[in-house]
Amino acid sequence: MPDRGHFGDRLADRVVHLESVLCVGLDPRGPFPDECTRGLRDDRSGMARAMERYCLGILEAVGDLTAAVKPQVAFFEALGGVGLTALEHVCAAARERGLPVIADAKRGDIPSTAVAYSAAWLGSRAPGEEPLADAMTVQPYLGEDSLTPYLEQCRTRGAGLYVLVRTSNPGADDVQALELARGGRVWQRVAAMVSQAGETLRGRSGLSSVGAVVGLTHPGALAEARRAMPAAPLLIPGFGAQGGVLAEAMPAFTPHPAGGLLNASRSVIEAWRGEPGPWRDAVRSAAEAHRALFWGAVDAAA
Amino acid sequence: MPDRGHFGDRLADRVVHLESVLCVGLDPRGPFPDECTRGLRDDRSGMARAMERYCLGILEAVGDLTAAVKPQVAFFEALGGVGLTALEHVCAAARERGLPVIADAKRGDIPSTAVAYSAAWLGSRAPGEEPLADAMTVQPYLGEDSLTPYLEQCRTRGAGLYVLVRTSNPGADDVQALELARGGRVWQRVAAMVSQAGETLRGRSGLSSVGAVVGLTHPGALAEARRAMPAAPLLIPGFGAQGGVLAEAMPAFTPHPAGGLLNASRSVIEAWRGEPGPWRDAVRSAAEAHRALFWGAVDAAA
Repeated sequence: MPDRGHFGDRLADRVVHLESVLCVGLDPRGPFPDECTRGLRDDRSGMARAMERYCLGILEAVGDLTAAVKPQVAFFEALGGVGLTALEHVCAAARERGLPVIADAKRGDIPSTAVAYSAAWLGSRAPGEEPLADAMTVQPYLGEDSLTPYLEQCRTRGAGLYVLVRTSNPGADDVQALELARGGRVWQRVAAMVSQAGETLRGRSGLSSVGAVVGLTHPGALAEARRAMPAAPLLIPGFGAQGGVLAEAMPAFTPHPAGGLLNASRSVIEAWRGEPGPWRDAVRSAAEAHRALFWGAVDAAA
Repeated sequence: MPDRGHFGDRLADRVVHLESVLCVGLDPRGPFPDECTRGLRDDRSGMARAMERYCLGILEAVGDLTAAVKPQVAFFEALGGVGLTALEHVCAAARERGLPVIADAKRGDIPSTAVAYSAAWLGSRAPGEEPLADAMTVQPYLGEDSLTPYLEQCRTRGAGLYVLVRTSNPGADDVQALELARGGRVWQRVAAMVSQAGETLRGRSGLSSVGAVVGLTHPGALAEARRAMPAAPLLIPGFGAQGGVLAEAMPAFTPHPAGGLLNASRSVIEAWRGEPGPWRDAVRSAAEAHRALFWGAVDAAA
């Protein structure tokens, strides 16, 4: 067992302790609060510094209300090396608070390259360095062998993995919902692959380290996903702006309250827009409202 | 038409001019030549600087022999922000040489996030900045709407796109080769999606800006891919270490010699290992041997 313990168990303990299945998505879209941009230049370095200040402020506001934070790597990557360095600082700050980080990177490559991606986010990148993230999101299109390096980080370093199974965007059906000759759909076959990959990685909580991304926007999908992946922690986007209905999420919580994390991004981190008062207070209020709302769904499922 | 012209046409001109369909994969795996590590510390910054020197040396050695270079983003990302900054320098150096860069990033996300990824690699990241890359690789699992922001960069900025269709790894069959109820396999359906997405993006060469990754390791796959995507430039991994047979690639060249780029990574960039003499000379010799070998396949297809 790695020093920091099993991912599913760490998540389970935190969820129960905080009574929170909220995952706050760090999708930093400008403009940022004045406090974050003060004194900075309008170039990539300045933008990266503003993004970092914004995310650090959010961590401070929501750190004791959220089960995890999910930085969307794309927004940092769009600023290049300085953006990725800003994200490293945000991850370090979350780690200091004991706040689990799920890197929303959606990486996917052949095994020899996946070794590098898994090291980048879940491994030790240099002697003595802690991993950037507790878990990350990955793509399934390259098949099971492409997941192997990440599974190894789950096994040896207590990392977690969320494989894209059923995404929340309108185009998700194009590939994921194709009907198979042997019955079922592509995403259900992927779900079976994820379940099998996580079979030997269950913790004492009953949850595996190997989870799946299943959007709230497809009626019945969470129930089917839970049947296909009984032990997988589910990461659930699609609430709020994307129109997902909360009751759809209930099957996620059947094995354990931490069986589902409900992501909220803009509705929490941009709650300050147009509001009077300190921006962090608005973010904190929104996070608390989401925490309570989401925990109600867990209670209802119990 | 964007200033730098249409991606497929740029590629077509270069391929014919150099008589080269070689794409040199920049997959920088240590240990690096002594010249690249001299005076550097053994931390992430030092490693990133060594990686940069190594790749700059490769650009110098192969710049007039290769149709494009394909940096594997994972190896830079594994070093964090300093690694990505090193990659930015490598891309800038390639651009100064007029050498097309295909960022092998294999990104894939919902449309609102794909906007950030497409800006990161294909767009202008800040006022006055040139795009890092000419083209990039992306995932198809999230469906057609997830490709839209990249297609927009193709349309407005002369960028190119290579969508993963049939990858070269052993596990590729797990998802890609699933048989569909309506006939055909998942990857063939993805190929049809790619072909349709690129339909309105054909250049005067006949090639589209929207291409596909099709590995050389599946017998008959290139021929089928070409039928399904008549105008798509194909990026073809799997030659050499992965065991692909060169003759399999010939259907790629049917519409145009630039209809296929054959990738070679280790067999070129690590050709110096165990060899006497300057390391760049060994890399250059290997690149020239691959260029001639691959051009022979184009000639044979004509």
